[in-house]
Amino acid sequence: MGTVAWKQLLVGALESNTHLRHSSFFQLASIGTNGKPSNRTVVFRGFQDNTDNILINTDSRTPKIEELKLCPSAEICWYFTDSWEQFRINGNVDVVDGWNPDPLKLQQREKSWFASSLRSRSQYLGPEPGLPSLGEQAQPEISLDPSTGPVDAFCLLILEPDQVDYLNLKNSQRLAFKSSVSAAAKKSWIMERVNP
Amino acid sequence: MGTVAWKQLLVGALESNTHLRHSSFFQLASIGTNGKPSNRTVVFRGFQDNTDNILINTDSRTPKIEELKLCPSAEICWYFTDSWEQFRINGNVDVVDGWNPDPLKLQQREKSWFASSLRSRSQYLGPEPGLPSLGEQAQPEISLDPSTGPVDAFCLLILEPDQVDYLNLKNSQRLAFKSSVSAAAKKSWIMERVNP
Repeated sequence: MGTVAWKQLLVGALESNTHLRHSSFFQLASIGTNGKPSNRTVVFRGFQDNTDNILINTDSRTPKIEELKLCPSAEICWYFTDSWEQFRINGNVDVVDGWNPDPLKLQQREKSWFASSLRSRSQYLGPEPGLPSLGEQAQPEISLDPSTGPVDAFCLLILEPDQVDYLNLKNSQRLAFKSSVSAAAKKSWIMERVNP
Repeated sequence: MGTVAWKQLLVGALESNTHLRHSSFFQLASIGTNGKPSNRTVVFRGFQDNTDNILINTDSRTPKIEELKLCPSAEICWYFTDSWEQFRINGNVDVVDGWNPDPLKLQQREKSWFASSLRSRSQYLGPEPGLPSLGEQAQPEISLDPSTGPVDAFCLLILEPDQVDYLNLKNSQRLAFKSSVSAAAKKSWIMERVNP
């Protein structure tokens, strides 16, 4: 019941804010390799089929990959600016790059690659993010064959939620969702109404 | 020069997004007492006078207080939805509650208290955030005398930036600002243009 409840709230928020381009943007916090918190805006790329796992595309050359491999724990903070709803989603992140040994995960990575626009895909062919920029001039337009599969720099992140904190600033409702895993490895959720 | 540069960019972003109520909201990441990342939306309350330190009001009964006392390092991620600019601001947070021994900090806390609306102030008299909610009914309206000073639950956070990453998604410009402190305790900033 719990899973359905928070996912339904999230799907509802996405629907009611869909007219805003930035409604699919959220902030992903992780722990830096220096032990300090790291926080950046990323784009929601949907749920993994038949799960409530959250998909994010990223460049494997960014520091978050090393960070998440060292410490997979992350927290999403997703604020919907029109409906005044906040979701804090805590969970572990699975880093799926081209060297992943699991063929099913590689298949999911390929699916995410082809689901993104050609323009998004071509960004993974650009110069290494965060390195000193070599000049003022605009980068040459990179042309990418639409049938080309995922390039090395393309990395899929899969966040599996285990705790969700929902806050609605319009009606001051706050709900805390916590998951637990049974001896039979079945995940279930409990929900509690808490003070905002 | 560096300080001026990123602060000027931030002031410019605030000005160009001022028509949006949520332009003063950003996400603050810290490290939870369980060692996992924590991330929530908070409100920008201005800069501390004559500094580039960022002011945030919060409730001393929320977990972030204990978190920041244990590990003062935090990262702000601030995305401006109209100008497509992102600021990632890393620094240490000074927690200024009513028990702070520094009279100047207590004065700053009082100033921040009176600078916030009466409605904001009265929220600090509400039930303890995050605890189970006792009922469906709306909380009774709390009336607060406008001359009453800061209540125990009111806490001021002062983030002193030491690193800023600026990204402009409209022109793909990205700038990295880093501070250093000289032997004479003078803080200076360097700026570098990096790949987006």
